[in-house]
Amino acid sequence: MAYSSLVRAFTKLYRYQHLASIAGWDQAAMMPSEGNEARGAAMAEVAVLMHQTLTEPSLGEWLKEAKRQGVETASVREMERQWQVANLLPHTLVEAKSLAGSKCEHAWRTQRKANDWHGFLSNFRDVVKYAREEAKLLGEATGLSRYDALMAKFEPGTTAATVECMFSDLKKWLPGLVQEVLAKQRSENVIAATGPFPIEKQRALGVEIMGILGFDFKRGRLDVSTHPFCGGVAEDVRITTRYREDDFMQAMMGIVHETGHARYEQNLPRELVHLPVGQARSMGVHESQSLSFEMQLGRSAPFLSFIAPLVSKHLGEQAAFLADNLSRMYTRVAPGFIRVDADELTYPTHVILRFEIERALIDGEIEPDDIPQLWNEKMQAYLGIETKGNFNNGCLQDIHWTDGTFGYFPSYTLGAMYAAQYFAAIHKAVPDLDTRIATGDLAPIFKWLDDNIWSQASKLETAELITRATGEPLSAVHFERHLRARYL
Amino acid sequence: MAYSSLVRAFTKLYRYQHLASIAGWDQAAMMPSEGNEARGAAMAEVAVLMHQTLTEPSLGEWLKEAKRQGVETASVREMERQWQVANLLPHTLVEAKSLAGSKCEHAWRTQRKANDWHGFLSNFRDVVKYAREEAKLLGEATGLSRYDALMAKFEPGTTAATVECMFSDLKKWLPGLVQEVLAKQRSENVIAATGPFPIEKQRALGVEIMGILGFDFKRGRLDVSTHPFCGGVAEDVRITTRYREDDFMQAMMGIVHETGHARYEQNLPRELVHLPVGQARSMGVHESQSLSFEMQLGRSAPFLSFIAPLVSKHLGEQAAFLADNLSRMYTRVAPGFIRVDADELTYPTHVILRFEIERALIDGEIEPDDIPQLWNEKMQAYLGIETKGNFNNGCLQDIHWTDGTFGYFPSYTLGAMYAAQYFAAIHKAVPDLDTRIATGDLAPIFKWLDDNIWSQASKLETAELITRATGEPLSAVHFERHLRARYL
Repeated sequence: MAYSSLVRAFTKLYRYQHLASIAGWDQAAMMPSEGNEARGAAMAEVAVLMHQTLTEPSLGEWLKEAKRQGVETASVREMERQWQVANLLPHTLVEAKSLAGSKCEHAWRTQRKANDWHGFLSNFRDVVKYAREEAKLLGEATGLSRYDALMAKFEPGTTAATVECMFSDLKKWLPGLVQEVLAKQRSENVIAATGPFPIEKQRALGVEIMGILGFDFKRGRLDVSTHPFCGGVAEDVRITTRYREDDFMQAMMGIVHETGHARYEQNLPRELVHLPVGQARSMGVHESQSLSFEMQLGRSAPFLSFIAPLVSKHLGEQAAFLADNLSRMYTRVAPGFIRVDADELTYPTHVILRFEIERALIDGEIEPDDIPQLWNEKMQAYLGIETKGNFNNGCLQDIHWTDGTFGYFPSYTLGAMYAAQYFAAIHKAVPDLDTRIATGDLAPIFKWLDDNIWSQASKLETAELITRATGEPLSAVHFERHLRARYL
Repeated sequence: MAYSSLVRAFTKLYRYQHLASIAGWDQAAMMPSEGNEARGAAMAEVAVLMHQTLTEPSLGEWLKEAKRQGVETASVREMERQWQVANLLPHTLVEAKSLAGSKCEHAWRTQRKANDWHGFLSNFRDVVKYAREEAKLLGEATGLSRYDALMAKFEPGTTAATVECMFSDLKKWLPGLVQEVLAKQRSENVIAATGPFPIEKQRALGVEIMGILGFDFKRGRLDVSTHPFCGGVAEDVRITTRYREDDFMQAMMGIVHETGHARYEQNLPRELVHLPVGQARSMGVHESQSLSFEMQLGRSAPFLSFIAPLVSKHLGEQAAFLADNLSRMYTRVAPGFIRVDADELTYPTHVILRFEIERALIDGEIEPDDIPQLWNEKMQAYLGIETKGNFNNGCLQDIHWTDGTFGYFPSYTLGAMYAAQYFAAIHKAVPDLDTRIATGDLAPIFKWLDDNIWSQASKLETAELITRATGEPLSAVHFERHLRARYL
């Protein structure tokens, strides 16, 4: 009884979320500029509605009753997680946090361009203050440490201690490896591709690759947006990319990346997808899908050799499009300021830096004022890059912190490590995997991901999901092996 | 107090409607096929939500109180209209009617193709039964006759008596005029345009014409759907068309038509558009905007002479695209079976026929079984066309009746008559209007429509709106004059 009432409530919530997702996709991919105000009001209204649905007093009663009865434990566990986020914080804090976040994010959009760290700080202090309060309250209610309580919104079950353990391993060998690879690549000859590459042709190439990667166009679309994303709903997944006429590389690999996210969504268990237990496990596991597609498969030599003829078919023949050269193009390492532009090898250093700073910030070990100096020290230590005074290319570059999204950054590199560990397992199970990939036979990969990740949704906690899938708990070993094998 | 509570409730409703409209547009213009089930569930959920919002008991109290206080009378009047539709019917009837309608409509999609009138009848009898019950209850509550009570959902304030009066006028001269025009056109030489007309070029032509017609692309889009429509929200209007490679005429004039709807929406009073009083007056007035654009302006010789060079610019030069020939193409009369394919002159006969049948059906003067015979008699009388046994091209052709939408058909021809009356008034106020149109100066038309219709939204009842705008009540005089002037 209690459980079926919960199912009804969460089904309603899922349908509201459907409308919010489609409206959100439209806002990013279709909506003309002046539509934004009315759209914002409508999106806020549905957010209020979803919050109301999750804070109905009867929901808490049903959860208590369902737990007492011990029915559908995994499903109830995941419902309770969503319920907690909505119910554990006083309304006044939620509102104050949201206001401070919007204000800071809005101002940041101009402050970043103006390199105005001090202007940013004046708003950001409040954002941090409310995030700390949130972390304290969530931590008290759930028994987690403060930072862990925030991270639990994105990576439930994973703690800062686990992340720190992984990242301290990475820090031991990654900065050295970067330098080694840079030295090696200095003598490498990469032929640049010559544009322009007409957008319609890039799109056709992308669509063909999506087909090879198993994207179901009867239940999804490819469109364009300023910031590529995977949105929509599991039954109708909307991915986006952006095209540049002078560069085909970003759009092509961006499509591969988003297709990874999309296949996870498209292959969640259909009969459960309206309930939390039938939805994606975590942001890190979601990222592990996009990075399985982009980093493990997409930038691999056998895959690039398989699609090299397609690149030529759509964009015209060039020496740059030969398989070996494509491989070199897509594994080129270049340390830089900007996380979103980083290559596979240097990307984790950007994440480690942010994790270390935000963890200390939430736990009260440092203050917002300390960020630029720490940023500079860590960029120097990990990548040998000086960022002093260069706020817009330093600590002002990401949107995450501006609205109080702390605890999200680890997901990116957790995803990369999960993906490396999956592919180690797949290679072990399918010894001729590379040969198969080179002929376009990707079925063993899709089957493994479906059996072990997609169809599992949120039935298991993340640690158990990974251990059951790969035969061992998460470690950095496979990620390191993968990077050394690919880059040295 | 009561009024501001009403404003809050209707604002919320407007925002829910925003999400429903965008999801509806997406469903028709963007959604891949397999997304339909989840979308249907989400749309049904928001419909339930909107119904709940409109049936909150406090709403009835506030309306009573606001009427007692005599505040914002027009706004309260329009709120009460929406409230009535949701509150005057017992829930059991609404559900039974909706179920019978979905069942009949769904079956009709195959029955129409199979010419299966008897199969259709078996579902349609229930649809009629519930529509009659609805009409009876609405009529009792509002003091209207049964058919009037249904028509009030689309044309509030207009009665069957008014429509009958207009239509009996039309019937006196229209069938004769059709024959006269056919005789005249028999000797007319029309050069057919030679395709193919690439879709991208048709689209570019359409976009340029939309610009000339004042469509605001910062607050709207043009896309493709199977059945063209004007959707979205007033702040972000989404129109659609459909293209055929072998015929540019339909898409081009379809775009002109939908742009008329769109400009009405885009120019509703911004500060009121979230309330019923700030929304479109009626379906007939909405159609009067699309027909002002399509029939009064779009198919006029001066307008076609102005855009003839644009047609050549986009689709290549042909003798068919010369101004005079374009005019002849767009005023060609050909009686036929199908309403949606009908030309300007024969279209009203299709509407009169449907109005007469549905009025008698709802008032209980005839039964569903009588429809085919009546259909055939009227088609013979009005257009000289035999439809006996040809159900799919006769009484099975429209979707309206299948789900119980009775009382809508008059809107089409009311719209045509309003539009003719507007343009008579504009011509009177701007004697050199045709010369101006021929040079692309459409500002006087837009200003007149804005002053008299768009900015008025639902502040006035329809009859008063028309009388104030044109200086006289609606009559068929201007419509007849317009048709005789254009076709004889």
